[in-house]
Amino acid sequence: MAIVETSITPIGTETPSVSKYVAKCHKVLEDFPEIKYQLTPMGTILEGELPKILEAITKMHEVPFDNGASRVSTLIKIDDRRDKEATMDAKMQSVISKL
Amino acid sequence: MAIVETSITPIGTETPSVSKYVAKCHKVLEDFPEIKYQLTPMGTILEGELPKILEAITKMHEVPFDNGASRVSTLIKIDDRRDKEATMDAKMQSVISKL
Amino acid sequence: MAIVETSITPIGTETPSVSKYVAKCHKVLEDFPEIKYQLTPMGTILEGELPKILEAITKMHEVPFDNGASRVSTLIKIDDRRDKEATMDAKMQSVISKL
Amino acid sequence: MAIVETSITPIGTETPSVSKYVAKCHKVLEDFPEIKYQLTPMGTILEGELPKILEAITKMHEVPFDNGASRVSTLIKIDDRRDKEATMDAKMQSVISKL
Repeated sequence: MAIVETSITPIGTETPSVSKYVAKCHKVLEDFPEIKYQLTPMGTILEGELPKILEAITKMHEVPFDNGASRVSTLIKIDDRRDKEATMDAKMQSVISKL
Repeated sequence: MAIVETSITPIGTETPSVSKYVAKCHKVLEDFPEIKYQLTPMGTILEGELPKILEAITKMHEVPFDNGASRVSTLIKIDDRRDKEATMDAKMQSVISKL
Repeated sequence: MAIVETSITPIGTETPSVSKYVAKCHKVLEDFPEIKYQLTPMGTILEGELPKILEAITKMHEVPFDNGASRVSTLIKIDDRRDKEATMDAKMQSVISKL
Repeated sequence: MAIVETSITPIGTETPSVSKYVAKCHKVLEDFPEIKYQLTPMGTILEGELPKILEAITKMHEVPFDNGASRVSTLIKIDDRRDKEATMDAKMQSVISKL
C-alpha cells in the first residue's frame, strides 16, 4: 500500500477560485471505494494500492478539462514503503508519539 | 497571509523510518507562535505571513543535519492568494460546501 | 501531449548517494521510444502521451525496490495543455523569446 | 551549497499562457550574480548558498503579483547535500557516468 498526495490545479481559469474544480475532482473518488482519502487545505491524500490510486488521479486530472479548463497542473507525491504496512494513521501516530 | 505545505526528508539515513526527524522538525514551530500549523500524513501545512513561514521552514530544514543527516530533500509548496483572506479553514470549507 | 517531470528518491539507503538508482531508473525509458525525455540536475522531464508517461514512471518507481530499497519517494508534476501542442522545446522558446 | 528547483505559477490568469510571467521572474536573477541557474521546460534550477537562493525565489514569487496576478502557486524543491560539494554539473555527471 502507498500513501499519495495530489493537487490538481487548472491554469488560466479567469478567476483565482478553483474550489469548484477541486470539489468535482473529489467526486471521482466515490467510484474508488477501495481508496481511503483525506482532504487537506493543500490537496488530497490517498491510501491504497498504487496502481488503483494512479488510476483515480488520472481520472481526477481529467475533471477540470471536462469543465472548461484548457491547461491543468497536477502534482503527485508518492510515499511507498514496503518493509512494513504504512497507513496515513500509522504515519501520523509515529510522529505524534515522538512529540 | 499564505498557506504553505512542506515536507523535509533526510536522504541516506540507513533506515527508512524518518519520523524522529519529522518530530524534531516540528519542535521548531514552538518558536513561531504566529504561525498556525497542521500535521498531515504527508507533511506540515503552515498558515501565516510568508517571510515568517519561510524563516521557520529554513530552520526546520536544518534539523536533520543537526541530527546526523548529510543530505536533506525539502519540498515547499506555497499557495499565496491576495484578493481575499485565505486560511486553511476557509479553503477546506470552500471545497466541502461544494461537495 | 503532456510534459511531466519526475524525481524518484529511495529513502533509507546506506549512503546519501542515489545516482546509481537514478541511472537504473533511466534505463526503463529505453523501453518507451515514444517518450521524449531530458535528464536535469533535479529529475527527468518526459514529453508524450500522458497514460504512456505514467506507465513509464510507474516502472521507474519500481527500480529502487528491485535494487534493495524498501521505501521510495516519487514526485510527479504534470503540465497538460490542450489548447495548443505543448512541447518541451516550445515551452523553453516561449520563455526565452521574452527574455 | 544547495541545488534548488522552483516553478512559479499564477492562478486565475485570463489565458493558460504564463510564459510572460516566467520571463519576468527570470529577470530577478540578474540581481543575484552569485547564483548559477538553468531554465528547464518545467521550471528553474538554481545553485548557490541556500539563504541567497530563498531570497531570490521570494522575489521571483512577487513578480506575478506585480504584474496583475492575485494568486500565485510556487513550488520549491531543495536538494541540500553537505558531505561533499554538490553542483548541478556534478549531479548530472554522476548519473550519466552510470548510464
